[in-house]
Amino acid sequence: MTIEAAIFDVFGTVVDWRRGVAEAVAPAFAARGIALAPERFADAWRAEYQPGMAPIRAGTRGYTPLDVLHRENLDRALVACGLGEIFDGPERDALNTAWEKLPPWPDSVPGIAAMRRRLLVAPCSNGSIALMARLARFGGLEWDAILGAEIAQTYKPEPEVYLRAAAALRLPPGQVVMVAAHNDDLAAARAAGLATAFVPRPAEHGPGQRSDLAPEADWDFVAPEMTALAERLAG
Amino acid sequence: MTIEAAIFDVFGTVVDWRRGVAEAVAPAFAARGIALAPERFADAWRAEYQPGMAPIRAGTRGYTPLDVLHRENLDRALVACGLGEIFDGPERDALNTAWEKLPPWPDSVPGIAAMRRRLLVAPCSNGSIALMARLARFGGLEWDAILGAEIAQTYKPEPEVYLRAAAALRLPPGQVVMVAAHNDDLAAARAAGLATAFVPRPAEHGPGQRSDLAPEADWDFVAPEMTALAERLAG
Repeated sequence: MTIEAAIFDVFGTVVDWRRGVAEAVAPAFAARGIALAPERFADAWRAEYQPGMAPIRAGTRGYTPLDVLHRENLDRALVACGLGEIFDGPERDALNTAWEKLPPWPDSVPGIAAMRRRLLVAPCSNGSIALMARLARFGGLEWDAILGAEIAQTYKPEPEVYLRAAAALRLPPGQVVMVAAHNDDLAAARAAGLATAFVPRPAEHGPGQRSDLAPEADWDFVAPEMTALAERLAG
Repeated sequence: MTIEAAIFDVFGTVVDWRRGVAEAVAPAFAARGIALAPERFADAWRAEYQPGMAPIRAGTRGYTPLDVLHRENLDRALVACGLGEIFDGPERDALNTAWEKLPPWPDSVPGIAAMRRRLLVAPCSNGSIALMARLARFGGLEWDAILGAEIAQTYKPEPEVYLRAAAALRLPPGQVVMVAAHNDDLAAARAAGLATAFVPRPAEHGPGQRSDLAPEADWDFVAPEMTALAERLAG
């Protein structure tokens, strides 16, 4: 079956969230004399990511955009880092925009643009439409649509997120390839019937990363970065 | 309140659906020796547009993408034009892609690109995400997101469509301007709390058009075309 669209995990796969969050919070941390490395705080904030979505996946909480979850997670991460008394509400709201200022990996913009010559391209992220639109503007990414959690009203890896993305493009799942740096994302996409492409991001979690360094299944496409993947998908 | 985003009616406002549909069906009509002017058939097809959406607005039919309604409307329009026995199912499916090949008015691409320098821009159309994405590719339109009926799961002028579009951009309705060539679309957007901009399209319905030639209320912005509107919104 011919691939007609490529949809993308974004945090980690398309953009470097760890460096972006660290650089966005660094000035506020420096101004308050906080000694904690901003990268460590980015890790602590991201550690709240999966637990924050769990009640929505389980159906015990209604769909809540990731922007709201990020803001709640910020409060928890500050407490976890012993910084629970620092930053008032408006300062925290400002810090929360860190997630709109994440640099794409160097190959993301040219690679996705190359894929877009033949394919429809869209994010299939847990980020909201508002967040994905601002992130695209920040990083110079050009998408055909913004798909993902918000149009499915639940979070990956729920199968509805992948299936709604394909349906919104009016394509059968097998004509849509999910591109991700995370094996679990691809496993869920494959279970929903999508094609799969693995692009490793061995620096996503900083030095010493041990997860997702290599494909853990026979994904349909494996490429070292996005421009190489574009060549594989050009056929 | 500062305008932060512009959302657009598409059929008639951004693209010339009448010429596009006429040009798309003309070869098939010629091949079958159909004497009816393709523009007349475009009018007949479009005449089924509002009736097709009515049961969904009324809640007596679940949300059905406009692509499906267009296909149903095609059957009705062919019958209405005395062509009900011509074109089999696959031929009708091919004719239905006419709505993906509509030329933008000459000012649309440069005007929207100019607005995009400062504002988020997105369609707020009754067209599906799949249709809007293909139409944007056809015409060279660049959007930040695709909003409209599909994310609201109902059709304009239901207020949810305008309100969901603003919410998806994480903006209060008053910071979002609805751009349309149709006074009734703007009236509904204003009732939902959005700012309004009127751009007349006096040739939308061909020669002799009598509707929507002028603003029928004190819309927040009125401009003769999109590039002039971009200048008004640049402030």
